[in-house]
Amino acid sequence: MNVDGFARLLTDYCLEVQPGQQIQVSSTTLAAPLLLALQREILERGAWPLLDVSLPGQSEGYWAAVTDAALDSFPSAELAAAQALDASLRIQATDNANALASVDPARMARAARAQAPLREARVAKRWSITLWPTPAAAQQAGMGTRELEAFVERALFLDRDDPVAAWGELRAFQAGLIERLAPAREIRIQAEGTDLTLNVEGRTWVNSDGKRNMPSGEVFTGPHETSAEGVIRFTIPTAPRGVVVEDVTLEFRAGRVVSAKAERGDAYLQATLDTDEGARFLGELGIGTNFGIDRPIGAILFDEKIGGTVHLAVGRSYPETGGTNDSVVHWDMICDLRAGGTLSVDGEPLLVDGRFQV
Amino acid sequence: MNVDGFARLLTDYCLEVQPGQQIQVSSTTLAAPLLLALQREILERGAWPLLDVSLPGQSEGYWAAVTDAALDSFPSAELAAAQALDASLRIQATDNANALASVDPARMARAARAQAPLREARVAKRWSITLWPTPAAAQQAGMGTRELEAFVERALFLDRDDPVAAWGELRAFQAGLIERLAPAREIRIQAEGTDLTLNVEGRTWVNSDGKRNMPSGEVFTGPHETSAEGVIRFTIPTAPRGVVVEDVTLEFRAGRVVSAKAERGDAYLQATLDTDEGARFLGELGIGTNFGIDRPIGAILFDEKIGGTVHLAVGRSYPETGGTNDSVVHWDMICDLRAGGTLSVDGEPLLVDGRFQV
Repeated sequence: MNVDGFARLLTDYCLEVQPGQQIQVSSTTLAAPLLLALQREILERGAWPLLDVSLPGQSEGYWAAVTDAALDSFPSAELAAAQALDASLRIQATDNANALASVDPARMARAARAQAPLREARVAKRWSITLWPTPAAAQQAGMGTRELEAFVERALFLDRDDPVAAWGELRAFQAGLIERLAPAREIRIQAEGTDLTLNVEGRTWVNSDGKRNMPSGEVFTGPHETSAEGVIRFTIPTAPRGVVVEDVTLEFRAGRVVSAKAERGDAYLQATLDTDEGARFLGELGIGTNFGIDRPIGAILFDEKIGGTVHLAVGRSYPETGGTNDSVVHWDMICDLRAGGTLSVDGEPLLVDGRFQV
Repeated sequence: MNVDGFARLLTDYCLEVQPGQQIQVSSTTLAAPLLLALQREILERGAWPLLDVSLPGQSEGYWAAVTDAALDSFPSAELAAAQALDASLRIQATDNANALASVDPARMARAARAQAPLREARVAKRWSITLWPTPAAAQQAGMGTRELEAFVERALFLDRDDPVAAWGELRAFQAGLIERLAPAREIRIQAEGTDLTLNVEGRTWVNSDGKRNMPSGEVFTGPHETSAEGVIRFTIPTAPRGVVVEDVTLEFRAGRVVSAKAERGDAYLQATLDTDEGARFLGELGIGTNFGIDRPIGAILFDEKIGGTVHLAVGRSYPETGGTNDSVVHWDMICDLRAGGTLSVDGEPLLVDGRFQV
């Protein structure tokens, strides 16, 4: 793993660290090599690295012991610190992708609602998120750890001579897509088991170029909340909070999920759609453009970026898209068009069988 | 190691954690078993554990990369968080006791001066400090790791049926000592190579009962700053910031160190005494009362508590004693009276050859 290159990409491209800034870097002990490299890079730029390191088992231990009363609150020290930061970086580095699979989703949703001010303080500042390839993440992906390391390098363009230039090229490609998408009204997605239309008229498409999500490689917007009509089948599994959910089919009427089924994880799917009213409406439509990612690894940060796929999220929309759906849920699900399928823009195919028509 | 008993002693006796409180717990990853037990105990009491975990090598990496400009400042996020806390616990858990031995002491002193507001915010709230027995700490002590674990259990009274009761007994014993010390004017320390007198008239003696230092077992005060006269030899080595200093002799005139010599680490000793003017005056006189600690382990938290020893600190005094000496330095050095020596109170022996005359 090119740890130093990874750290420099995060410091200079994603965070653009400036002297005097306070940069919080959160991860687990498993990302120690990257954390120590980031500490060095941030210090050398005259800024403050504030390492926020979790232990293996800490999150699971938290949920095993936290009282119900505590779920409705949060420590003010965390908010005070968050407000003083200039930027934050979260590095996913799991020791067990299923650590929280048995935690009651209702308790997690309750805590998420209470922690809204914390979340808002963090996203009010610059932020980025990335992933460190741990043995557990490799196991989740069905790979060896070294195999996942090489995969991550390709996904982040760390295998290129100039990763920043490669991200610039992808940004330019995505700008071309957005030129076609921005004036559009109707998006239609068609594949086996899928025929869904969405209205995106007037909404903003975001060029996600790796500064916030590393890796990125997607353009996304928030569809009109009551516009989704039809059915869509998500053939790539997702594992929100460690619960594996496979082969989801959602049927929409006037934007609302009126029927839902998962071949695996159906109880979790039904419970999540019932979390709040916004959980039954779409918050996001995204199109993956990263051809350095050629298969799912069970981490949504990567899987939703697979070049030639499309994803929808039920739940909270991103305000910068013009989307207005509100929920504590934001669950991205991926429809793979590479084995046969089309995404059309006002009737013109943009993506056919996983290849962009540009 | 009785990890659960250790965590309960810290939670209930040292910190007296109450519902809703925010408790910062700082250590390294090596203390993971104790950190996870503390997380559980604090959560179960309806309070917030804020774990602040450092990586092996993090401190060394910090000093290798931090810029000079950064030494004169600190991140405001840390101050904001410190001000919101109710209590903090620091758990020493070293992976290398000599990690910072080669860092320029002048740079460390410069950073310590700049961070005074942070330090003040922390000590304005309840705080405690303890030690987790790591392999490196055992190596420093010249012990096996399991041997050090058993040693720590004895020092903290975790080997007793009721550790809290044992601390109560020690508190009562120390209260008896303070009855004799409180009205006293002159303390005289005599041993081979040592004959030193100090004036403590009107100063407050603190009964250090394990709530702040775990373990404790000492009574201490701040002598009058210009009162020290004579010479003292510190026969127990100390290792401030990882620099080993052995067999220190200090000569005082009107409270000021006028001559100093160390058989090992002399350059560090001389540099430290030159840090600022207060570094040449005494900030503390303490008497160790913990007979669960029978030999030095190279960690001052333990060594200064050895039953039957006396220690003096050059540098900063504790305001609660009435001491007024100011410095960024606070360096405890230990004079072992157990092999032959006397501490007298206004001419009456209180401690003879390591045994209290009570």
